[in-house]
Amino acid sequence: MELITPKTMPGAMELLPRDQIAFQRMLDTIRRSYERFGFLPVETPVMEYKRILLTKSGGETERQVYYAQSKGAHDLERDIEFCLRFDLTVPLARYVAEHEKKLIFPFRRYQMQRVYRGESAQRGRYREFYQCDIDVIGKDNLPLEYDAEIPVVIYHLFKELDFGKFTIHINNRKLLSGFFASLGIEPEAAAGVMREIDKLDKRGMDYVVETLTGETFGLSAEIVDKILGLIQLEGSNSEKLNALTAMNIDDETFQTGLDELKRLVDGISHSGVPEAFCAVNLSIARGLDYYTGTVYETLLDDYPKVGSVCSGGRYENLAGFYSKSKLPGVGISIGATRLFYQLQQASLIKQETSTTRVLVTRMDLKLSAEYLALASELRETGLNTEVYYGGGKFAKQMRYADRSGIRFAVIMGETEAAKGTVTLKDLHTGDQVEVNRADLAAVIEERLA
Amino acid sequence: MELITPKTMPGAMELLPRDQIAFQRMLDTIRRSYERFGFLPVETPVMEYKRILLTKSGGETERQVYYAQSKGAHDLERDIEFCLRFDLTVPLARYVAEHEKKLIFPFRRYQMQRVYRGESAQRGRYREFYQCDIDVIGKDNLPLEYDAEIPVVIYHLFKELDFGKFTIHINNRKLLSGFFASLGIEPEAAAGVMREIDKLDKRGMDYVVETLTGETFGLSAEIVDKILGLIQLEGSNSEKLNALTAMNIDDETFQTGLDELKRLVDGISHSGVPEAFCAVNLSIARGLDYYTGTVYETLLDDYPKVGSVCSGGRYENLAGFYSKSKLPGVGISIGATRLFYQLQQASLIKQETSTTRVLVTRMDLKLSAEYLALASELRETGLNTEVYYGGGKFAKQMRYADRSGIRFAVIMGETEAAKGTVTLKDLHTGDQVEVNRADLAAVIEERLA
Repeated sequence: MELITPKTMPGAMELLPRDQIAFQRMLDTIRRSYERFGFLPVETPVMEYKRILLTKSGGETERQVYYAQSKGAHDLERDIEFCLRFDLTVPLARYVAEHEKKLIFPFRRYQMQRVYRGESAQRGRYREFYQCDIDVIGKDNLPLEYDAEIPVVIYHLFKELDFGKFTIHINNRKLLSGFFASLGIEPEAAAGVMREIDKLDKRGMDYVVETLTGETFGLSAEIVDKILGLIQLEGSNSEKLNALTAMNIDDETFQTGLDELKRLVDGISHSGVPEAFCAVNLSIARGLDYYTGTVYETLLDDYPKVGSVCSGGRYENLAGFYSKSKLPGVGISIGATRLFYQLQQASLIKQETSTTRVLVTRMDLKLSAEYLALASELRETGLNTEVYYGGGKFAKQMRYADRSGIRFAVIMGETEAAKGTVTLKDLHTGDQVEVNRADLAAVIEERLA
Repeated sequence: MELITPKTMPGAMELLPRDQIAFQRMLDTIRRSYERFGFLPVETPVMEYKRILLTKSGGETERQVYYAQSKGAHDLERDIEFCLRFDLTVPLARYVAEHEKKLIFPFRRYQMQRVYRGESAQRGRYREFYQCDIDVIGKDNLPLEYDAEIPVVIYHLFKELDFGKFTIHINNRKLLSGFFASLGIEPEAAAGVMREIDKLDKRGMDYVVETLTGETFGLSAEIVDKILGLIQLEGSNSEKLNALTAMNIDDETFQTGLDELKRLVDGISHSGVPEAFCAVNLSIARGLDYYTGTVYETLLDDYPKVGSVCSGGRYENLAGFYSKSKLPGVGISIGATRLFYQLQQASLIKQETSTTRVLVTRMDLKLSAEYLALASELRETGLNTEVYYGGGKFAKQMRYADRSGIRFAVIMGETEAAKGTVTLKDLHTGDQVEVNRADLAAVIEERLA
């Protein structure tokens, strides 16, 4: 029989167990932090009706959407009915609209699932990746306090994740659009200008100036100067807010945005987020047009090239396609697969030790029943414990523990069994000690702590 | 604008948050139990190459497989390249063959992911459902001790899940096929006979007798009597094993199977699984032909109609399509979505209280900063805490807590703030007490314990 080459689909992250443990640990930390702030779990099916999923998208996004159809239906040349979700926002909108009457508003949900995009496969671009989202959805209205809570969640979460110093950049799109209006830039052009500003980090100043003064936008050098003056404001948060106030811009939208930004900064600082971790940054615009107020981006200070690791913002209406209700919301998203990959590349994520803590070796098969009982005793105390039945010499059993990343090996021969003791080998420190069988779990717990 | 009706795909389980919490709790328990026995996490992409996924299947299974293709590729009429997995066994085989050199054998993995089958949508049948699998894969060989460990995992897990009394039924297919051979039934016919026997529970005795003496199998009444005598053996495990020994069947395969079954029963009892929870049952055959030795089924004693909630067995070679290595294994699978659905129907799973423990209400907006600080204090101690910014009267805030399933509400007015106290309302008991702010977390923890 000819063998079929076993191969993972391109553009997916498939991990060996010890890396999977590290990834799982990251997901667990995210989930724990989301729950700590009162967000509730939601999972949606990977497939959505095509008519629902393709409502909001178009162009490149639409081209990348995966169709899903059973072979049976395909062979009968049936119409495509379902697609795989490409983000968690459309499924959320569908979920909230569908279950609106049964949900309690403000509705706080987190969702951590994989999404699918038919990207051309290249390093670091994924066709399948985890998104970890939180959103708060209000009915008719949603107080600004919810905007101020999101950076507190981000702060708590990235402290827990422990990837070094980070900065949550905040801005307000009303402030930006009001500012553009005051310069006489039309709303349609303003959206384009914001998209260009958002490229400042990646493309640099010269590119942005050239584009804005160029054919498409045709802004005067004077106006571009004013824009750059705004987005490059420096200083502490209060210095920036004072400077913005002092500009005395005669535009209601600008003043509303400025007021929201001030209240946002206030609320964040009351929650104990140090200013060093949360900065007003007027160059943050977020490319997506559906953000209408507050916007967030989070950067790892020591890894600026990774880009924003947690972004989001406030939107006017979540589910306009599916419901007559007005459902404003605010939320963020973490692209966990890409984040994990990049932190691995930066050696910030190490291979974890195994989730298995103890390997019970089998020196003497006459003691088989004893080894089983010993393992049960350890498991009773909550220690993840494996018995090695693979056979082979002592050295082979130790190699198995070592390569698997299991820290403790327990050895018991006839002499020890008679005495009621075992030998505990700590593969982390390399030493081994003889301990009373009754004390074994406690000794291990102590070393783990 | 015309609204699009928001609708979940048929055949998927989508839950409201409090049910999702209950489901998540079940998955967490399964995962914790798997890890307790030293199984390591693996996740594979939802898509597999078509040539890999469609190797083992055929007929009805194949018709149900979902094709996945990006809209872009579909519009260009490209060939279908990928399918969605329909179980976790084929992905495991591909994974082990692909990463064989980097894995450590015996390889113990658990995998808890959704699988996809284009079933016709009807109550209780799912197109998308969770499978929670464990397998141990050996290289060249895998000692029988691993077969004996699996029921210990099942025992521990279903004790933790707490769905009432259950019985793990065990059997050995070598014993069955050896027995059939001793009756002169050809191996091909024997596989069919085993499939029929497996229907005993669902179709009843008359159906099975009729089928076996009927046209397809054409067995004599005498032979069918002998088969029924075997599969209906009664008594304790040792009584059954003694009866099997006493049969003196002159067939090597039978004797090998009997020996394996004896060692299995021995190993299980040494691990402290009470006999009441694990029964030799000679009518258990498992429909799938690739099991070659030990087989398991688990039934909830009080809910026999639910059928087997955890099944599996020993197989000769996991990845023959993809690797020249011989990779024997043993494993089980839990269909978590169906299990959850059926236990919900049986009212065995209740709606959970929220993962959020405390709602900090806002009586007096002058104290806004205090409420934020209070919430931070509670979160610091590990309590999942939400601040209610929705506005509205006290009664509305309490209704929100109650409907959300949040047990504790904290109330602080000006008087209390001045005194350094808060009022704690326990929505579970209905009472409320004034406590020192500094003691709040401890008081809550005590009530939770």
